[in-house]
Amino acid sequence: MTQPRNILIVTCHPEPQSLNHALTGHARSTLATMGHQVVESDLYAMGWKAVVDGLDFPADPQGTRLQPGVASRRATDGGTLTADVAAEQAKLLAADAVILQFPLWWFGLPAMLKGWFDRVFSNGFAYGLTAPGARYSARYGEGRLAGKRALLSVTTGGLAPHFSARGVNGMLEDLLFPVTHGTLYYTGMDVLPSFAVHGANRLPDDQFAAACEAYTRRLQGLFSDPVIPYRPQNGGDYDDTLQLRPDIAPGTQGLAAHRD
Amino acid sequence: MTQPRNILIVTCHPEPQSLNHALTGHARSTLATMGHQVVESDLYAMGWKAVVDGLDFPADPQGTRLQPGVASRRATDGGTLTADVAAEQAKLLAADAVILQFPLWWFGLPAMLKGWFDRVFSNGFAYGLTAPGARYSARYGEGRLAGKRALLSVTTGGLAPHFSARGVNGMLEDLLFPVTHGTLYYTGMDVLPSFAVHGANRLPDDQFAAACEAYTRRLQGLFSDPVIPYRPQNGGDYDDTLQLRPDIAPGTQGLAAHRD
Repeated sequence: MTQPRNILIVTCHPEPQSLNHALTGHARSTLATMGHQVVESDLYAMGWKAVVDGLDFPADPQGTRLQPGVASRRATDGGTLTADVAAEQAKLLAADAVILQFPLWWFGLPAMLKGWFDRVFSNGFAYGLTAPGARYSARYGEGRLAGKRALLSVTTGGLAPHFSARGVNGMLEDLLFPVTHGTLYYTGMDVLPSFAVHGANRLPDDQFAAACEAYTRRLQGLFSDPVIPYRPQNGGDYDDTLQLRPDIAPGTQGLAAHRD
Repeated sequence: MTQPRNILIVTCHPEPQSLNHALTGHARSTLATMGHQVVESDLYAMGWKAVVDGLDFPADPQGTRLQPGVASRRATDGGTLTADVAAEQAKLLAADAVILQFPLWWFGLPAMLKGWFDRVFSNGFAYGLTAPGARYSARYGEGRLAGKRALLSVTTGGLAPHFSARGVNGMLEDLLFPVTHGTLYYTGMDVLPSFAVHGANRLPDDQFAAACEAYTRRLQGLFSDPVIPYRPQNGGDYDDTLQLRPDIAPGTQGLAAHRD
């Protein structure tokens, strides 16, 4: 018996009949069968507003010079975030795990999903937090969303070898680092290795079944599989300038140095 | 005397009085003084539509299942792209160099700029091209935009050491790899090392002047500075599965292996 948990699935694809929505449907039923409670944000169905602009800060007088970080902090602290943003933050706070389901477009998030992060991960909620006694803010392993788990479930039009450690596109986990490390781990979440379905533009039925099976195993391990061992910012591996100490990962180059 | 060229500057920030717009203003006047022709896309001022959806494909019957890549190819080949997308493609084709000016939000592009790529870099224009005699499509060093140069000019709220080779955020050029390599170089463009202004949320006047001076040097080198030496896909460094051959960058890990 697994312990029942709350799981938020955020899906970003414009077509309800897409592979992405099929994978979300598979996750929904699989997680429900396991006894979990599933909450969803289907961004296109919600007509999610992708862009940060003055409309996000209705409490600011019209004509105020828009400094997004400052306005975001004022709205977060003052409780004047727009209702759509506040609702997503409430879903995040209630979740034990968050799954993000999206197609990899230009090796990153579709604009709408990027805009979900740009708007929902507000200053004072997801960043700009003070760590007691620490020189730098509470982030990278600490933060409002600490203790929760996160999983990216991505579809790509490419082939798996093109995303391997030496594949022409760059390694998938490196391409996703700005999201897994720079966004999710930044807020304190524990991030699982990403789940990917490649060749998504022309997936035969039997490969869809295989993808669902593989996804089921990842969903079963949502709370037990090992997470990406990113290094906490304030855990001793970084020096006073927030660069890795010389004795930490001395022979490792690139983004991999930030994994233990 | 520099040879006069056409330069497209794409700016993405919601506030006209922002540092980003100030940097674009500096680039505009500096490049004009050098005799260049500057064309601009100020995405927020244009009210740029960020998200890919069915409205992008007006020639498709309502109710058509939306397969973004397929619909994009049909619209590109059929000349039925929306006018806003077609205009940006025309600007790109006319440009000798493209500068993208934006704030780094969550270690990536703001949603609106991501949506500029998602929509403007259409199938049949920026990807899905056939390379004569090659097994794989013309990309990574070849493509419709080959021969043009590209420069990212980014502002960040962080400090430079946090973006260094061993900085806690990850190295800036690795974080931008999905854009520089995965998007710009993908289409054939030669990409310059990114220009960054850090601590952008609280930049004193003297540091703004210093940033402009540094930016001037980069603008002067727009057509002469060495570009990031990414490896062409079809140049012999990758094997038949598009993974780096064992003798290429044998000791190098991560995204750096794709630089010569």
